[in-house]
Amino acid sequence: MSTKTTLGIFGLGTVGTGVVDLLRDNPQFDIRAISVRDRAKQRDFDFSEFEMNQDPFKLADDPTIEILVEVAGGIDPAYEVVKRAIINGKHIVTANKEMIAKHGPELFALANQHKVTIFFEAAVGGGIPLISTLQRGLQANKVSRVAGIVNGTTNYILTKMEREQKSFADALAEAQAAGFAEADPSDDILGRDVVYKITILSSLAFQAPIEVEKIYRQGITEITDLDIKLAREFGYRIKMIGLAQRGENPGNSDALDVRVHPMLVPLTHPLAGVDGVNNAIFISGSAVGEIMLMGPGAGRYPTASAVVGDVINIASAIKLPDFAQYFQLPISSNVSQVMPIDESENGYYIRLETHDSPGVIGHLGSAFGNHGVSLHSFTQRGVTEDGTATIVLLTHRVKEKQLQAALKEITDNPTTKQIGVVLRVLS
Amino acid sequence: MSTKTTLGIFGLGTVGTGVVDLLRDNPQFDIRAISVRDRAKQRDFDFSEFEMNQDPFKLADDPTIEILVEVAGGIDPAYEVVKRAIINGKHIVTANKEMIAKHGPELFALANQHKVTIFFEAAVGGGIPLISTLQRGLQANKVSRVAGIVNGTTNYILTKMEREQKSFADALAEAQAAGFAEADPSDDILGRDVVYKITILSSLAFQAPIEVEKIYRQGITEITDLDIKLAREFGYRIKMIGLAQRGENPGNSDALDVRVHPMLVPLTHPLAGVDGVNNAIFISGSAVGEIMLMGPGAGRYPTASAVVGDVINIASAIKLPDFAQYFQLPISSNVSQVMPIDESENGYYIRLETHDSPGVIGHLGSAFGNHGVSLHSFTQRGVTEDGTATIVLLTHRVKEKQLQAALKEITDNPTTKQIGVVLRVLS
Repeated sequence: MSTKTTLGIFGLGTVGTGVVDLLRDNPQFDIRAISVRDRAKQRDFDFSEFEMNQDPFKLADDPTIEILVEVAGGIDPAYEVVKRAIINGKHIVTANKEMIAKHGPELFALANQHKVTIFFEAAVGGGIPLISTLQRGLQANKVSRVAGIVNGTTNYILTKMEREQKSFADALAEAQAAGFAEADPSDDILGRDVVYKITILSSLAFQAPIEVEKIYRQGITEITDLDIKLAREFGYRIKMIGLAQRGENPGNSDALDVRVHPMLVPLTHPLAGVDGVNNAIFISGSAVGEIMLMGPGAGRYPTASAVVGDVINIASAIKLPDFAQYFQLPISSNVSQVMPIDESENGYYIRLETHDSPGVIGHLGSAFGNHGVSLHSFTQRGVTEDGTATIVLLTHRVKEKQLQAALKEITDNPTTKQIGVVLRVLS
Repeated sequence: MSTKTTLGIFGLGTVGTGVVDLLRDNPQFDIRAISVRDRAKQRDFDFSEFEMNQDPFKLADDPTIEILVEVAGGIDPAYEVVKRAIINGKHIVTANKEMIAKHGPELFALANQHKVTIFFEAAVGGGIPLISTLQRGLQANKVSRVAGIVNGTTNYILTKMEREQKSFADALAEAQAAGFAEADPSDDILGRDVVYKITILSSLAFQAPIEVEKIYRQGITEITDLDIKLAREFGYRIKMIGLAQRGENPGNSDALDVRVHPMLVPLTHPLAGVDGVNNAIFISGSAVGEIMLMGPGAGRYPTASAVVGDVINIASAIKLPDFAQYFQLPISSNVSQVMPIDESENGYYIRLETHDSPGVIGHLGSAFGNHGVSLHSFTQRGVTEDGTATIVLLTHRVKEKQLQAALKEITDNPTTKQIGVVLRVLS
C-alpha cells in the first residue's frame, strides 16, 4: 500500500528488537529491510517475515525507504550510514547518544541542508520525553540548569549500596547478574555514558554545542558504603549526576558549567527520591520554575517507546511539504566553551584517612583555612587497629581550585595517609 | 515588519499579564490588541503601549491577527469568541480548562474544518509539558492509567494539614491568606477544577471524549487532621487525585474509570512526595512503563510559560502550508462511557463514630462480612467523654457497591453515630 510510511531498521539488539516488535503490527508502517551485524544470531523473536541483510549502507541507499531507524549504537559504522541516508533524503530516528553527542551539530546541519529531520528522543532517558520537552515544551524559558540522573546502572548500584549496605563491588556484581550492568561496565561506572547524555541535554537547553572531551568526569568506583551512610546522616543521598548550568563566573560568563560526577543530593530535593534503574531530569527555567521528569531510563520497551514515538511523529508530518524546517533545532553553530572544573563552585564532601596523632585536626583546619575553605561540619570515625582515623568533612561552597590547593597541602602533610574520596554537593 | 507573527490577547488577569510580559520584548511577535473586561483596572504592569479594548469579538474578527490567545477563562464569552476566531481562520492558544473540558471535541472538529490548530498546554498542570507528552511523546503506547495531583490549592492545604497538624479550616484560611486559594474556594476544594483537568487528560490518553457531568467527584472538606495522621500510620499520604483508567469490568470494557477524589497514596508511590502547590502526573503506558512529570501547576509565569511555548510552536509552524493537519488530535468523535462509581473497585479507608458499647465490633464485622468486604486493618481511638468511639478501618479491594451496602447496614445499626469519611486507596 503506497500510503504506508517505509522504514529501514539498522540494528536488532535489545532496543531494535523492541522497535520491530512494536511496529510490526502497525498498519501505518512498512518495514522494508532490517540490517544486522550477524544474520545467523539467535533472537528472542521470530523476525523471518522481514528482509534481513548485513550491510546497513543498503538501507541508506534504498530509494524506497523514507525513514532510517538507527538503533545499532556506537560510531562505526552508524555515523557513516546515517550521513549517507541523510544525503539520500531520508529522515533519521536514532537512539545513539554517542553519535549525537559527538557529531550532532554536523548531522543537524547536513539534515537541514537536505531538508530532512533527525529525531533522537531515545538517546537520553529512555522513554521519558526529555528531548521534546527541552526542544518544544520550554521555548518560552531561558533554561538556567539541567541536572539529571540519566544512567540507570549507576543509580541501581548506588540504590543497592544504600538499601542493603552493600559494597560497590558486590552491588556491581548484582547489577551484572540482574542484567542492569554490562560485562564491561566501564562506560557506565566511569561516567562516559552520562557525558554523552549531558552533552546532548546541554546543547538543547543552551542551544549551543559543546565538545564531549571538555567535560569533567568522575566515576562512582571510589564510593564506599560508609560514604553513603555518612552522607545520609548529613541529610543527603549520593547520586550520579549529569549537570549543565550557565556559568556563574562573571569574567567568563559565556562558558557553560557542564560536568559529570556523583553528588550529594539533599534529601528534600526531588532527585534524591529517584531510585533503582529510574532516570529523572530536573530542569530550571526562567518562567516555569523547576520541573522534573521521571521514568525508566533504559530497557527494551521504554527505549523502543521513544524510538517508535519519533517514527510516528515523523510519519504524521511527512506528507506536509517542507515540514522539516519546523523541526530544525535552534542550535547555534558556534561551539560553546565549557568552564574548567577548577573554576566551578561547590560544597564538598571529603573522606580522608590520617594517622591517629594529636596535631591532625589542627593541620586540617589550617590547611583549609589557608585556602579560604570554610567547613560546614565534620565527623571522625573510630580509629582502626593500625592507627588510622577516618575523618569526613563537609565544606561550604568554595571554588574547586581553592579546595584542590587545600587538599594538596593536606596530602603533603605527613599525618595524612590518603584522601579517600572527594564528592561535590548539589545546591 | 511583515514576518512577525500577529497576536490578539483576550484576558489580562494573572496569566494574561505573564503572557504579555514574556512576549512584549520578543521581536518575533506583534501583539496587535488586548481585550480586557475592565480597561480602567489597575494592573501590576504598565501595558499602555498596547491597544486595549473591552470587546473580545473584535480580536476574533480582526483580519490582521493570526493567533488568538485566550487567557480569560470561563465559558462566557470565551467559548463564543474562540469559535468565531476559528471560523475566521485564526489559530487558538488557550489556558481554559473548563472550555476545553466541556467543548473541546466540538472546537477541535471546527478547527480541523477551518485548518487551524488549538493548543492548550496551559490548561492542565501549568508549565509542566503534560499535554504534549500525552499527545506526542507516548504515541507508541497504549495508556492504561493517568493519575495526577493537578490542583495546587488542595495539595497546599493537605500538605499544610499534614506538616503543621492544622485543621482543614485553618489550612484553607492560610492558603487564602497566601494567595493559593481564592475567596470562594469551592471549585478547588470540591474538586470541580480537577474534573475539568482529568476530563482533558482522559480524552488525550484514551483518544475519546467524555462528559464532565458523568465524572464522580468528592472534595476534601471532610478530611480531618486525624485522617491524615492515621493514614500516615498505615503507610499513606492523603492527596487529591484525578484518576482516569481503562475499566477492569469485563462486562463493560469500553467504559472508562474516571473520577476525582482524595486518595490514600502509598508512601512509596512517587505521587506521595509531591508537596505544596506542585502538580504531578503519573502515566502508565504499555511500552514506556510508568513515568511521572512534576512541577509548579499554577501561578503567573509557570502558566504563561506553557501559553507562550504554544504560541512559539504555532509561530514556527505557521509558515508551512497545511501544517494544521499535523496537529490534529486523534480523538474519536464518539463519546466514551464513564463507569458508574458503584462499579469501581478500591481499597477503602473508613472513619466512623460509634457508641462505646460492647457489640460494636461484632456489628461492624458482620456488616462488612455480609457484603463481602474484607478488612485489612483497623484501629480504635480513645473514647470521648460523651461515649463516642472513633474507629478507623482499611479494607481490601472491593467493589464500591458492596462497600456502600455494608456502610448502609452499619449506618442503620443503632450503635453507629455517623460515618465520618470514606476515602479510596490508590493501588
